[in-house]
Amino acid sequence: MSSILVLPGDGIGPEIVDEALRVLDAAKARFGLDIDLDHGLVGGAAYDAEGDPLPESTLEKARAADAILFGSIGGPKWDTIERDKRPERGLLRLRSSLGLFANLRPAILFPQLAGASSLKPEVVSGLDILIVRELTGGIYFGQPRGIKEENGERVGFNTYVYSESEMKRIARVAFDLAMQRGKRVCSVDKANVLEVTELWKEVVTEEAKAYPEIELSHMYVDNAAMQLVRAPKQFDVIVTGNLFGDILSDEAAMLTGSIGMLPSASLDENRKGLYEPCHGSAPDIAGQGIANPLATIMSLAMLMRYSLQRGDVADAIEAAVEKVLDQGLRTADIHTEGTRKVSTGEMGAAVAEAL
Amino acid sequence: MSSILVLPGDGIGPEIVDEALRVLDAAKARFGLDIDLDHGLVGGAAYDAEGDPLPESTLEKARAADAILFGSIGGPKWDTIERDKRPERGLLRLRSSLGLFANLRPAILFPQLAGASSLKPEVVSGLDILIVRELTGGIYFGQPRGIKEENGERVGFNTYVYSESEMKRIARVAFDLAMQRGKRVCSVDKANVLEVTELWKEVVTEEAKAYPEIELSHMYVDNAAMQLVRAPKQFDVIVTGNLFGDILSDEAAMLTGSIGMLPSASLDENRKGLYEPCHGSAPDIAGQGIANPLATIMSLAMLMRYSLQRGDVADAIEAAVEKVLDQGLRTADIHTEGTRKVSTGEMGAAVAEAL
Ligand SMILES: CC(C)[C@H](C(=O)O)[C@@H](O)C(=O)O
Ligand SMILES: CC(C)[C@H](C(=O)O)[C@@H](O)C(=O)O
Repeated sequence: MSSILVLPGDGIGPEIVDEALRVLDAAKARFGLDIDLDHGLVGGAAYDAEGDPLPESTLEKARAADAILFGSIGGPKWDTIERDKRPERGLLRLRSSLGLFANLRPAILFPQLAGASSLKPEVVSGLDILIVRELTGGIYFGQPRGIKEENGERVGFNTYVYSESEMKRIARVAFDLAMQRGKRVCSVDKANVLEVTELWKEVVTEEAKAYPEIELSHMYVDNAAMQLVRAPKQFDVIVTGNLFGDILSDEAAMLTGSIGMLPSASLDENRKGLYEPCHGSAPDIAGQGIANPLATIMSLAMLMRYSLQRGDVADAIEAAVEKVLDQGLRTADIHTEGTRKVSTGEMGAAVAEAL
Repeated sequence: MSSILVLPGDGIGPEIVDEALRVLDAAKARFGLDIDLDHGLVGGAAYDAEGDPLPESTLEKARAADAILFGSIGGPKWDTIERDKRPERGLLRLRSSLGLFANLRPAILFPQLAGASSLKPEVVSGLDILIVRELTGGIYFGQPRGIKEENGERVGFNTYVYSESEMKRIARVAFDLAMQRGKRVCSVDKANVLEVTELWKEVVTEEAKAYPEIELSHMYVDNAAMQLVRAPKQFDVIVTGNLFGDILSDEAAMLTGSIGMLPSASLDENRKGLYEPCHGSAPDIAGQGIANPLATIMSLAMLMRYSLQRGDVADAIEAAVEKVLDQGLRTADIHTEGTRKVSTGEMGAAVAEAL
């Protein structure tokens, strides 16, 4: 028996997670899966109910579960509350408390949605990049940090810091994943300016020696931001730190033009993981039943593959999504002439049905 | 009489600067400009000759000049020398020593080169963004920094730091420039995670009060990286810190598909400035006479506009470049069928001639 904690969160979170659960039911039926579901509050919803974006009860449930299915968090409602109570803080604490250091963000272009990209078809067709982002270190968590008074004015400061062991373990995740793909890893740094990334480059290079089949390259982050626009298909796996990974994974996701389709996984040492769509909580369209549930459904597929070791179930869910796209079903965000516009619920039902 | 210091640097630097000087000669003749030229060594060339990428003699000349015309620096030859002696260090010290805190990077799509972009024509046609990047602070120069031993392993660290006064002055530059353009400024931060950028957002918002006509917006850096791909024309002026500016300005430049065309200016409080092409030193094609000199020529135009207060000369140089593009002349990097491929020297001569 496996246990999954469901954290719908804010905005469109609850409605898209509901559809993923519908697909999970279909998967249980088809594959006879034995899964125990638990539910919890996180983000603004948790703040509203309990004054904390990550209540102790949620954290306990998260520790107990094998995997977490996460919706999305945040919204203007909580933008002005005390910094430590904001929805994002709940997510950051969750990642850190559970040691979810390896963030996997695929940027894949679905052939059915090729037209949605702002890039020319020949530049992006067949795009399949995996960004491996370090998620529990770097400048996101570095100390000291804050705002102080100095020479009569305020000064803001943060610390970008990585230890060798942190660098090693994320490099190994990237190399292991690359071995199952194109065997090419590009490590992104700013070693010509930042000492911390100079060490990063050195450590990644050292770690690569255990993977003789891997072709390792290095790129400065400014160049990487450029190359993703110029010729994104040159990349197989990109590995980088927390901040650069945040920026580049969003840029890469947008190359596909359909960020409503992209899942992510955040894994610990033992492949326990948190799975969430790449897109945000979209408070402007929440509750209207028009959000795209596919990124969350694809996140469920990643959950099956990585935390539950059920690659077969993952494949089946992904195939069901492809089938529904082939049938011409589209939520509003990916709708184009000649396809059928459907609601969040219709999309979820169609995938469950296809499964 | 004005004085310009010429620092050709490494790789293609010398050949592209030569063409800019040819255009300068034509400008002198046409406008009767009284300009005193000085020359100096920087980067790898300076290291080879004097063991320092920014020799004291060069720094003195730079302090004495009204403006600096800079080629490009770096190459594999110097990648493995001691960190402090690398070509980039020379440039960083030059920016810092002269207080060149305001880096202006236009990302403009030349209609004649619309096809070169990897983005769909409708997404980028007419693109005209100005990125204002803080250049002498932030994580580039923050202390403490380095690599230390801790708990038996190495730890790399850097400090991202900005004082209120540093934030204010760059915000004002952005607002002043926006007043001469579309009057819209987007300030890019990561205020949901980094305290230093939380203060940035606050200070920029405060400074904006002196500019009632400016429409100020804020965007997280990950979203900005995404929006530049999705719909770049939504931006007028973007203002941000040193590191985010490095990444976003390169990404924005690449949207045009012709980074060989884009100039930059780095200004101090008194509009003294260093002018350099956005592209690098391209050691692989150095000395072959095929590099594109137009970014350097456009940098000369910026020099005329900002440091020499000769907007008329700048306009004339820019018009000459447009004319040559209209005539169908193209260096290899921007060459397409139906246009005439020319060498670095032919391109420079054509612009000088057109002027
Ligand atoms: C919400 C925010 C704190 C978060 C991050 O920066 O990590 C988000 O942008 C992401 O990438 O998951
Ligand atoms: C060469 C390097 C140090 C420099 C920087 O990062 O500032 C370059 O990328 C730039 O943008 O001018």
